[in-house]
Amino acid sequence: MSSVFGSAIKISVFGASHGKAIGVVIDGLPAGEKIDLDELYSFMCRRRPGSSPLTTQRREKDMPVFLSGIRDQMTTGSPLCAVIENSDAQSKDYSQFRDKPRPSHADYTARLRYGDGVDMDGGGHFSGRLTAPLTIAGGIAKQLLAKRSIFIGAHLKSVGNAEDESFPLFPTAELFDEIAKRQLAVIDSGVIPSMTKEIENARAEGDSVGGIIECCAIGVPGGLGSPMFDGVENRLAHAIFGIPAVKGIEFGAGFACGKMRGSEHNDPFIVSDGKIITEKNDHGGAIGGITSGMPIVFRAAVKPTPSISKEQRTVSLSKMENTTLTITGRHDPCIAVRAVPVVEAVAASVILDLYMEENENGSY
Amino acid sequence: MSSVFGSAIKISVFGASHGKAIGVVIDGLPAGEKIDLDELYSFMCRRRPGSSPLTTQRREKDMPVFLSGIRDQMTTGSPLCAVIENSDAQSKDYSQFRDKPRPSHADYTARLRYGDGVDMDGGGHFSGRLTAPLTIAGGIAKQLLAKRSIFIGAHLKSVGNAEDESFPLFPTAELFDEIAKRQLAVIDSGVIPSMTKEIENARAEGDSVGGIIECCAIGVPGGLGSPMFDGVENRLAHAIFGIPAVKGIEFGAGFACGKMRGSEHNDPFIVSDGKIITEKNDHGGAIGGITSGMPIVFRAAVKPTPSISKEQRTVSLSKMENTTLTITGRHDPCIAVRAVPVVEAVAASVILDLYMEENENGSY
Amino acid sequence: MSSVFGSAIKISVFGASHGKAIGVVIDGLPAGEKIDLDELYSFMCRRRPGSSPLTTQRREKDMPVFLSGIRDQMTTGSPLCAVIENSDAQSKDYSQFRDKPRPSHADYTARLRYGDGVDMDGGGHFSGRLTAPLTIAGGIAKQLLAKRSIFIGAHLKSVGNAEDESFPLFPTAELFDEIAKRQLAVIDSGVIPSMTKEIENARAEGDSVGGIIECCAIGVPGGLGSPMFDGVENRLAHAIFGIPAVKGIEFGAGFACGKMRGSEHNDPFIVSDGKIITEKNDHGGAIGGITSGMPIVFRAAVKPTPSISKEQRTVSLSKMENTTLTITGRHDPCIAVRAVPVVEAVAASVILDLYMEENENGSY
Amino acid sequence: MSSVFGSAIKISVFGASHGKAIGVVIDGLPAGEKIDLDELYSFMCRRRPGSSPLTTQRREKDMPVFLSGIRDQMTTGSPLCAVIENSDAQSKDYSQFRDKPRPSHADYTARLRYGDGVDMDGGGHFSGRLTAPLTIAGGIAKQLLAKRSIFIGAHLKSVGNAEDESFPLFPTAELFDEIAKRQLAVIDSGVIPSMTKEIENARAEGDSVGGIIECCAIGVPGGLGSPMFDGVENRLAHAIFGIPAVKGIEFGAGFACGKMRGSEHNDPFIVSDGKIITEKNDHGGAIGGITSGMPIVFRAAVKPTPSISKEQRTVSLSKMENTTLTITGRHDPCIAVRAVPVVEAVAASVILDLYMEENENGSY
Repeated sequence: MSSVFGSAIKISVFGASHGKAIGVVIDGLPAGEKIDLDELYSFMCRRRPGSSPLTTQRREKDMPVFLSGIRDQMTTGSPLCAVIENSDAQSKDYSQFRDKPRPSHADYTARLRYGDGVDMDGGGHFSGRLTAPLTIAGGIAKQLLAKRSIFIGAHLKSVGNAEDESFPLFPTAELFDEIAKRQLAVIDSGVIPSMTKEIENARAEGDSVGGIIECCAIGVPGGLGSPMFDGVENRLAHAIFGIPAVKGIEFGAGFACGKMRGSEHNDPFIVSDGKIITEKNDHGGAIGGITSGMPIVFRAAVKPTPSISKEQRTVSLSKMENTTLTITGRHDPCIAVRAVPVVEAVAASVILDLYMEENENGSY
Repeated sequence: MSSVFGSAIKISVFGASHGKAIGVVIDGLPAGEKIDLDELYSFMCRRRPGSSPLTTQRREKDMPVFLSGIRDQMTTGSPLCAVIENSDAQSKDYSQFRDKPRPSHADYTARLRYGDGVDMDGGGHFSGRLTAPLTIAGGIAKQLLAKRSIFIGAHLKSVGNAEDESFPLFPTAELFDEIAKRQLAVIDSGVIPSMTKEIENARAEGDSVGGIIECCAIGVPGGLGSPMFDGVENRLAHAIFGIPAVKGIEFGAGFACGKMRGSEHNDPFIVSDGKIITEKNDHGGAIGGITSGMPIVFRAAVKPTPSISKEQRTVSLSKMENTTLTITGRHDPCIAVRAVPVVEAVAASVILDLYMEENENGSY
Repeated sequence: MSSVFGSAIKISVFGASHGKAIGVVIDGLPAGEKIDLDELYSFMCRRRPGSSPLTTQRREKDMPVFLSGIRDQMTTGSPLCAVIENSDAQSKDYSQFRDKPRPSHADYTARLRYGDGVDMDGGGHFSGRLTAPLTIAGGIAKQLLAKRSIFIGAHLKSVGNAEDESFPLFPTAELFDEIAKRQLAVIDSGVIPSMTKEIENARAEGDSVGGIIECCAIGVPGGLGSPMFDGVENRLAHAIFGIPAVKGIEFGAGFACGKMRGSEHNDPFIVSDGKIITEKNDHGGAIGGITSGMPIVFRAAVKPTPSISKEQRTVSLSKMENTTLTITGRHDPCIAVRAVPVVEAVAASVILDLYMEENENGSY
Repeated sequence: MSSVFGSAIKISVFGASHGKAIGVVIDGLPAGEKIDLDELYSFMCRRRPGSSPLTTQRREKDMPVFLSGIRDQMTTGSPLCAVIENSDAQSKDYSQFRDKPRPSHADYTARLRYGDGVDMDGGGHFSGRLTAPLTIAGGIAKQLLAKRSIFIGAHLKSVGNAEDESFPLFPTAELFDEIAKRQLAVIDSGVIPSMTKEIENARAEGDSVGGIIECCAIGVPGGLGSPMFDGVENRLAHAIFGIPAVKGIEFGAGFACGKMRGSEHNDPFIVSDGKIITEKNDHGGAIGGITSGMPIVFRAAVKPTPSISKEQRTVSLSKMENTTLTITGRHDPCIAVRAVPVVEAVAASVILDLYMEENENGSY
């Protein structure tokens, strides 16, 4: 297993940055579900390169072509395959990295694993471009979930030192929509200038900057997931680390719980409008691996883009000696910006998988 | 899948806190491996309750009995089953929680998922007691890894506000041993008094306190793991969230990367003694899902024990009204303390699984 | 994966013929299901050695002890572990086979795979004794299925040249019960003398004889299973080959279809009592991997017991030369006899797994 | 799981008979393997429709386009996606079957499973056309295996009453090649006229006829596979039933073992040229789930094409009454003919998967 994940709904990602195409097969979608392709494409455009001055200038339309599984905008029940052509690849940029691996890129580890035959042009199969097929799968998952009153949103909790506020205790689908329309995906639009400045400064200095993405799923029924190794957190963590550059994940209060007392961290149950909720949500929507009915809330840490234009130290693999390299080309100064819809997409795929596994019959 | 994990080596955990026994089946161990049962039991004792004034006073010897898979201290190649009897269960303590779920315990979510038939006495299958079988599997994994020059250690990075230092860039097996022998698993023994005080204070106030565990694996060869969904981080995260109370995991620099520049976070490759290493280890031992040959370093956030003796607010499920409850009985004021060897155990199980999958033939 | 199978319900078998115990962990049973332990034990006794003059004289009570997952004869929802002690193992019999592998036993292939460390006393983990835990899992599955009006039965279609009749188009649960009570599991009791003679003759000549088992599941709802690689036939075939000595499986008309015309093999749909059925059942209950609502019918070929007391040719592994060996000890002259309930057990486990996966929530 | 199979090498099939395209993703191929695309296409042509007067007259070139995973005829190590366009679909033929399910086709069961949304034009995802992607995967697997001195061949053991001879004890790669070049894939070319007559007669009468395919893998090293549920037979059976129309599988002597004595069925080990072989091969190459080093031999029963032009009885789903239907259009009078390379392809995929799992590092 490697580029395949999921149980009731299996997602298999293929392609390489500078190959002919990238794409995804989704196995297990129920038949007869309407897919709004315009809405899907709008969602995908949120991660598309070239859409803002804050992202890479590589230009790809990234329009998916459906080879199977959809007919007249309806799922047919059979495995869906969607393909995106690579139209703007510039392979000449990457030859030197075969000998001089870029720091904190997969050039070196991919070679250890796969030998010299591995195609690493443009990052090969390790490229952030492979997140485009994830947004196809996730965009479809989001539409199926929305029909079941489950909504997923995410925002940039922080970029460098610029910090957005956190999700309220009960976010709404409208809030998710609003965030998605902003130039930067934040809750408090007042933070946009300082966040923009963090990114612009990094770029101006030939550098990059990291960020933290907060994601939330509302409407998820209680009782999904299992204890120990098949819980909501296990599955989300497993899949979210599939997004290149993610280096951490935390649920609810997360790492802050290390400094907390039980009396402070425990979430009292209360009856509200005839339903049981918790008064606050430090547990992040899952206890014992099982959803509580409260919003699922997690944060993912996204490292700064490893491709920077500053000179960096590295080694020559052929000469086994220290050397330097300089990366040119087009790169995002802050990949966290475009990773926001990708985190939503992967979270939606995982939650749909869990939901289908336990609630519906009717998928291949 | 739920209480089963692993690929080349499958681990299946069974039992409940107040049932007859708990245990584990390990499927896939190679034949002919010597297992030192004394060493295994010593390792298991590091998480055993009642071993220190800082832990729960429940007394269990937790001596494992091997029903299969070992003969004359050698693995036979067939699935290993080890069982631990529950000798000191006190079931009467738990009846009230059927109606009044304990905050931040799985009482409520387990009921949503499994209905009234679910056995939650002592936490049932959700209990921290189920980590004992994990230490059997992990203790065996540690012995197999040690013979392959791979060592795993962990320490309490912090408890409340008391903070230990971090692992050095290249920890040694000796350091791991030293840490394991201390009263509290810390690198800097000078932090023991303040950490003890954090725990004692919490207990004295009828409360509990959280902590952060840092774990490190040395000697892991480069080139293990795969990109996207089957990388080292995906697998470790998936399994580590199987330990009750874990709410976050981060690799290398982890969440701190959100504030970092690429020039600061990127790890330059250097040639050292004819080998390629990185100058520092903000990547935490894996890039693109694949091990780099540097130590694997991650931290797990462990929430404060949800069982506290302070009165707490909750609901009556039968009356659907707000109420309060008070938990009596024997509880760890800081589960992070006993979770240290459990984190080591799960990490060892995952790394052995990865290693066997790619390096050796000869397991069931 | 090896001694683990299943999806919604995972079954993990452990133990060795001459080890301390054998057993099974069943992960995924719903909570709150009543298990009649007497009925379970009666079912298990159908495969127990020593119960008839036609089987091996090894005497094992094979009484299972439940370590977890059952409380007051009710499932708790957590993984169930059941253990059977090995009380009558006679290890001395097997030492010579380390050098001289028995023909058509796993002695040789197990060594190729696992090396010298593998425990093959009494067949080790390859022994037919490991089918006892399968009858625990399958006996429980049968009880859960019966409550859902699904029943499974099997009979000896043939032993050597003695042939029983086939199941009628619509067998009943009563027929299954009747068959199970007979001295040999046949539909037509008139065939018992000739079948007995086949077995007695083989034994008298120090030989053994093969057989064919026909199994049927009634009441399985239509619409279970998936096309291509996750159909009813794929899953049943996968699991049934897990029973030692099975060398073939066929559904409906099976291999006879090779000689048939389409007009003869095709099963016309008809309306009967307001329901859609097929007029005959050459498809065996599944088309395109999916159940049709007709009885699932398959046959499994069981080879003659490889342990015979006639002298046989083999090799000495140490001398790499041809030699002979004679097997003494207690062996079934026809393992097909005791394999009947094992085939039922495995079929029940697979069908429950499929059923649960698609119909019910509420298992770990 | 459904249209996905494999462990070290995962194969995911997508598409529908009358959709835009069909194809396959292969995840886990090692990097740097040369793929001869002409040889691959030659292999695929063996199952291509329209290539002989004995097959359907539907004309498809079935030329695969590689979207990823291959560059300059070399595998890149990343998931390979290959696509085949559907160019000659004639959807009008199939509308009536929505109400009147064709006997022994999946029309009815697919509806039970997926509801009305399921696309069954031309058989949808259940169509035999989906075996074309299997020949891509299998053709690549065959090339990788050939470089490792493992060869796979198959022949028509029988069609109706026309019977070919069986494989010799030690078939050669040359024999496999010869068989593949014949007009019908048989060992004894003398059987071609009578086999052709069986097929022609069936067609002339508006009928179809079944057949049995025998497949053999030579050069497979001993020691592959595991006991119980992950053996060679389990895996092959699981995958072979993924080929539409297969109704049975047997290994070695197969069902004939039911009439055999142990002294007749047991295969004596002998030393031959310094290697251990068995004198005959009634075990079919695997004992206890593990390869013995002898050729793997199995037979698959292929039912007669369910599409026949004779009038057939069926039901009207809307009226719930008995009726008749007549199938027109282009159909194979004997699908076993074109299934020969498909059986080889699936067997090659399974054996490569097993081989890679245990022998090589270096796949995604």
